[in-house]
Formats: sequence, C-alpha cells, structure tokens
Amino acid sequence: MAIKPVELSKAYRLLQVGPTTMISAKHDGDENVMAAAWVGIGGPNKVVAYIGKQADTRQLVEKSGYFVVHIPTAQQMEIVLFVGEHSKNTMPNKLDSLPLFYQEEFDIPMVEGCAGWLVCKVIPNSHQEQNFDLFMGEIVAAWSDDRVFKNGHWIFDDAPDELRTVHYVAGGQFYAIGKGTKFNHGPGVD
Amino acid sequence: MAIKPVELSKAYRLLQVGPTTMISAKHDGDENVMAAAWVGIGGPNKVVAYIGKQADTRQLVEKSGYFVVHIPTAQQMEIVLFVGEHSKNTMPNKLDSLPLFYQEEFDIPMVEGCAGWLVCKVIPNSHQEQNFDLFMGEIVAAWSDDRVFKNGHWIFDDAPDELRTVHYVAGGQFYAIGKGTKFNHGPGVD
Repeated sequence: MAIKPVELSKAYRLLQVGPTTMISAKHDGDENVMAAAWVGIGGPNKVVAYIGKQADTRQLVEKSGYFVVHIPTAQQMEIVLFVGEHSKNTMPNKLDSLPLFYQEEFDIPMVEGCAGWLVCKVIPNSHQEQNFDLFMGEIVAAWSDDRVFKNGHWIFDDAPDELRTVHYVAGGQFYAIGKGTKFNHGPGVD
Repeated sequence: MAIKPVELSKAYRLLQVGPTTMISAKHDGDENVMAAAWVGIGGPNKVVAYIGKQADTRQLVEKSGYFVVHIPTAQQMEIVLFVGEHSKNTMPNKLDSLPLFYQEEFDIPMVEGCAGWLVCKVIPNSHQEQNFDLFMGEIVAAWSDDRVFKNGHWIFDDAPDELRTVHYVAGGQFYAIGKGTKFNHGPGVD
C-alpha cells in the first residue's frame, strides 16, 4: 500500500463515483474533521461542498481558505458516522481518536485509511457561501491509496472490498460501490 | 413496477448515493437529453448541475428555467453513453430512439426506465452560470421506480441488479452501486 500523488487533471475521478466524504480544515492551530455527504464536482478541477452554518469546521475553512475532501472507505464507515455525529463544540477532544497525518506543504490534518484526499483552495463567493452554504474549491493537490485508485483509475474490483467507497443514505444506511463494467466507448477515454 | 411520487423532503436521497445522471429540458417545442456526471445536492431540496456551454440542452434550461435530473440504472448504461456521445446539433434525430414519457403538469421529456426523476426549477445566478457553468435548481417534484426506491429509501438489495444506480468514471468504465450495510445510528434517521 502506498499513498501516491494523483495527476490533477484526473483528481475529479475520485469524486465522480459520488462517494460520501469527510472534510477537514485547520486555522491557527485549531483543526477539525466533519462528515459531508453533499460534496461534488463543480467543474474541471473544481469541487462544490455544502458546509452548513452549524458546522464548526466551516469557520476554519472560511478563515484559512483551504479544506481537504476525504474519500473514505467501507472500513471507515464508523469514523464517518463518528465525525458526523459529534461536534467539537460539545466534544472538545473529538479528534483524539482519529488517526491523522499531514502531507508536506499543507498544514491540514488528513485522516489515514481513506481511498483519496483532495486539497481544495476556496474560490471565494460570499453570495453562495452565505445564502446557500456552498463553498467552491479548486483542487490544488490530490493523493490516493494506489491499491484502489491507480494511474487515474479506480480499480475496485482488484482491491479488497473494505477499500470500496461509501455512499450514505440516511439513518445509518450506506451502500458500498459495486461491480464494474467496461464499454469500448464513452467520454473521457485514456 | 410503479412510478410513485417521492416526498420532496426525501428527494435528495435519490442523488445522495452519487449516481451519474441524465438531464432533459424543453423549450418552445425543442427538447433534448444529455448525460451529466457532475450533478449533486446543493443544499436542502436543491441540486447543483454542471452544464457546459457546448451542451445543446443548456440553452433549453436557460430559456425554460427548468430541467429534469434522471437517475439512470445499470440496464440503461448504453442510453447514458448514447446521449453523452451524440449532440442534437450533429444528430437532429437523437431523441428518436429514446423511450420518452411526460408527467402531468410538466412539459419536459423524461426517459423511461430510470430509478428516479427530479424536476428542478432554476434558481437564477448568472455569475455561477456564466463563469462556472453551474446551474442551481430547486427540486419541485420527484418520482421513483418503487421497486428500487420506496418510501424515501433505496432498496437496492431487494431489487433486481439491473436497477442499481450507475457511477461513471471515464472511457466507458462505470460501477454499479453495491452492497448495503446498516448501522443503528447515524444522521438522517427516520
């Protein structure tokens, strides 16, 4: 297992399968991780993330101008639910049990064990942020666990099932991504 | 099999598993259907859809102020690729081979055989539309095939596999949604 950089032009594919995500941010020594089900692609090399005003992580995003989108795996579903159910406001030691690491150049915590990580730089738009709680970010760096996303492609069917992405519905119910099929045509060939 | 209305407060769940979608629109008798991989939830009852300037369907969305997000199934993957690979500009009879139907009240074509359909009313924002090709829509009506999405919940594991949602990567490669797991806690319980 190795964490490898993902070519920026292909980083959107980490999100294109539509996984539930986690978002982390850090400002002035204060850091947090939240669950985020409403995160998608906002255009080439861009992410759109819904971050509600009740989320403590939001002010860290606003102040620092950066956030990291995590692509968690089936084996991390308890972590996703944990960070989604607990606020640092009521649980100050929320992050203590999380396995965090840092990539060089970016002082933002990342949760170990994910399938991928995308560092996003906020493209400021106060109208969207204030009225719709939507933050747009430009992807400036990305990494993947090369057992499951390699050379710009998901290889779920060759990887352990616990590395499949998770797709949350509600009430503790989620689905893992399933079986792959390949047609000999279709957009985005390479 | 029956196409049933989806309670608006739960319609976001059709999109929350992160499927690849199709988008249709109609204006003044002119109608079209496109593939759209970059469509997600933009907040409660809201959709954010990336619709590039090259898409013929875009002007129908702009002029009519409405679009329908389709949640296609594995059995429709050839249709998704077909509408993604062909433009009505170069193939005027593009829609002839598609099984279309209409719901009362909305004069917008819908493709038969999907797992769900969401009628969205554009929330105008010319800055986002022109600069980022992002269209925000409010979900004003939704339906699902109740064999696979019933009472506000996906029931993939009880439905035929060909009704699973599709998650496109690139180059003809897609994944179907996979196996479900239920925890006894988690946000969005009901």
